[in-house]
Amino acid sequence: MRVELITIGDELLLGLTVDTNAAYLARELGAVGVEIVRRATVGDVAADIANAVADALARTGAVVTTGGLGPTSDDMTKPAIATLFGRELEFDTDTYERIERRWQSRGLRGPLPATNRQQALIPRGAIILANDHGTAPGIWLEDAQGRWVAMLPGVPREMRAMVADRLIPRLRAGAQGASTVVRSRTLRTTGIAESAAAERLGPLAGGVEGMPLAYLPGLDGVDLRVTARGLPDSEADALLESAAARLREMMGAFVYGEGTMDLAAVVLDACRKCGLHLAVGESCTGGLLGARLTSVPGSSEVFLGGVIAYDNSIKESMLGVSPGELADVGAVSEPVATAMARGARTRTGADIGVAITGIAGPTGGSPTRPIGTVWIALDHPGPQFQVATEVRHAIFVGDREEIRYRSTQTALDMIRRALPTQRSS
Amino acid sequence: MRVELITIGDELLLGLTVDTNAAYLARELGAVGVEIVRRATVGDVAADIANAVADALARTGAVVTTGGLGPTSDDMTKPAIATLFGRELEFDTDTYERIERRWQSRGLRGPLPATNRQQALIPRGAIILANDHGTAPGIWLEDAQGRWVAMLPGVPREMRAMVADRLIPRLRAGAQGASTVVRSRTLRTTGIAESAAAERLGPLAGGVEGMPLAYLPGLDGVDLRVTARGLPDSEADALLESAAARLREMMGAFVYGEGTMDLAAVVLDACRKCGLHLAVGESCTGGLLGARLTSVPGSSEVFLGGVIAYDNSIKESMLGVSPGELADVGAVSEPVATAMARGARTRTGADIGVAITGIAGPTGGSPTRPIGTVWIALDHPGPQFQVATEVRHAIFVGDREEIRYRSTQTALDMIRRALPTQRSS
Repeated sequence: MRVELITIGDELLLGLTVDTNAAYLARELGAVGVEIVRRATVGDVAADIANAVADALARTGAVVTTGGLGPTSDDMTKPAIATLFGRELEFDTDTYERIERRWQSRGLRGPLPATNRQQALIPRGAIILANDHGTAPGIWLEDAQGRWVAMLPGVPREMRAMVADRLIPRLRAGAQGASTVVRSRTLRTTGIAESAAAERLGPLAGGVEGMPLAYLPGLDGVDLRVTARGLPDSEADALLESAAARLREMMGAFVYGEGTMDLAAVVLDACRKCGLHLAVGESCTGGLLGARLTSVPGSSEVFLGGVIAYDNSIKESMLGVSPGELADVGAVSEPVATAMARGARTRTGADIGVAITGIAGPTGGSPTRPIGTVWIALDHPGPQFQVATEVRHAIFVGDREEIRYRSTQTALDMIRRALPTQRSS
Repeated sequence: MRVELITIGDELLLGLTVDTNAAYLARELGAVGVEIVRRATVGDVAADIANAVADALARTGAVVTTGGLGPTSDDMTKPAIATLFGRELEFDTDTYERIERRWQSRGLRGPLPATNRQQALIPRGAIILANDHGTAPGIWLEDAQGRWVAMLPGVPREMRAMVADRLIPRLRAGAQGASTVVRSRTLRTTGIAESAAAERLGPLAGGVEGMPLAYLPGLDGVDLRVTARGLPDSEADALLESAAARLREMMGAFVYGEGTMDLAAVVLDACRKCGLHLAVGESCTGGLLGARLTSVPGSSEVFLGGVIAYDNSIKESMLGVSPGELADVGAVSEPVATAMARGARTRTGADIGVAITGIAGPTGGSPTRPIGTVWIALDHPGPQFQVATEVRHAIFVGDREEIRYRSTQTALDMIRRALPTQRSS
């Protein structure tokens, strides 16, 4: 099934909000064989919404929208699409009571604001997609020719629950017997540039097992994706399996995972299997490595915590870095990185200490230590490891946030490659 | 000037990459009076790219594209648009030499991969937008009727530099005398729900100073945006100034800043003015508060660092929380939050200690402490403050990442409101 997605909101066009809904919807719908073939974004203007929906309906007959269902006067999605379908808006008592109950159950907020009343206006003949996480109900509107629009709220949490609980079950039911299936498989690599990966995979330029190969470079590294179109599920899966094996063989240890798996989750999982605990000492990343590790549910089995040693006084007092060393060679140096990693490990009782110290910019660079200079150290003297200490020196490109993120990605990759389970690859 | 934006890449349609370029372009172009009126996303398919560009050119005559200029075989933007304009691709020796020099200057990578050669193919008659941060040059293609397409790379850092250094100067030069100017002003609020803000601003439902008012709810809080269209710069600025003053008056201390300013930057700035230093003790946020603070350039003047006390053993050893208290009342409690904040302050020598402990989910909730339960404490016994300790208890809604982010936002807002400079509002 081919659908078009229209995301609605002045805040998207004006760049005040990054549209994360689009990526989420694409992944979730793709997993059930519903392909988003085109996406458009329009502002909170009824005519623009109606035009975009009409164009998309003419192409595919199937449209999902997000946004513009809120309680404020700039929310135009429902009236615009109702008019396009020639349906009047009617006040729905059940929906209003549902909104009111939800409001009251949250407590301590006074009576339901009158502005919420318009959220209970529903186009005649529409199917309501109940919202279990917010006040704006979703709407499914379908015409006599079977062309449909599913209107979802713009708030990510509300949209996500509605997709899982209401939209996907409807689409699955409707897709029985459809012949167009899209399935893809993505291998994640890190530590290799896109063009170097392309050179290494040169023999596959024409495709893998007859399927196109795409390079998706990002801050995490380069993802490699193979896509099967229009094949029966079992045949597609077998070809994708064989293509993934071929890519893994050619890319070796650069591959750290599949799909959208984060390297932090890969590292935590590998540490868990080895019974190893992690601690961090972070200077230029200021907690970002800890934040990435703890964004993974269940990280507490492996990650103990550590020290944000942003100021040099904390490198000394909490990680035991010697004041003399700091004065002699500076905070961005191999000896300080190593001492920070050792301090993070010994002072927390972890098995592995990892430390990052560098110059993230935009100021603070020098000819000998340009912006992007980062030292990353691992300290792990346990018998599982081949070496007790490892240090990497890098000069990352990018802005402050990119340098910081790449530093955490490299630190995680150093842990991954150091772990006993990984060394055979 | 009205332009349409087309972002290109299978990775965007498949949801493997979140499109941050679109938001960036909208803000930067908006600031010079160029309004993005519609946005579309298509995959790496030549016909889809050509159709989307043709549709957009028919509407506005002005199109910016991002993506699909890379060195790999799935990069179709240049050939698709060159064909649409009836131009052949020609090998450009200068561009090739520039790419080669850039490659060599990075060192240690071997010869330029042959796949980079196609990046030097330029449509006949095009203007090259040089790329100072990557290999893919941008392209400006214009037809005899003055309709144009600017093709930018998809890598954010390369795109951003090209917009600032090449695209905006061209657009400014071309926009002389244009009558459509869009200017907007955004006030950022936190700690108040969208519908409560709308109720409070009820008298402005019809607009402020004749301009529409938009509510932009997000994880940071609710942004309030007023937009002036089609007015001379000075008149627009005066009206926006007056509207902003009105909104500030009606929203009071809920307003923490303007534009896209992050609350962490506001807090750091206010602390700097008071000569106060900050330290953190983070449990469920695992370093996220530190990461937010240190994402702001210059944060080292105020932020010392702190402890990621994810495991209870670290709460004890590095923050001095008493084992008895942890055993009696549990880690997610007022006394533990308070002790963590005190430990963060005293052990780092900071003036303000801030601590967060909570249950971010998806597991670990209980009837008395549901998922989302968070205790946030400030410890600041200095003479500048009215109270020595403050604690807030919240039950945040959302998934793990939302709960963690809202926790950091609330912690920052507590600091902001506690600072002497803020109390008058």
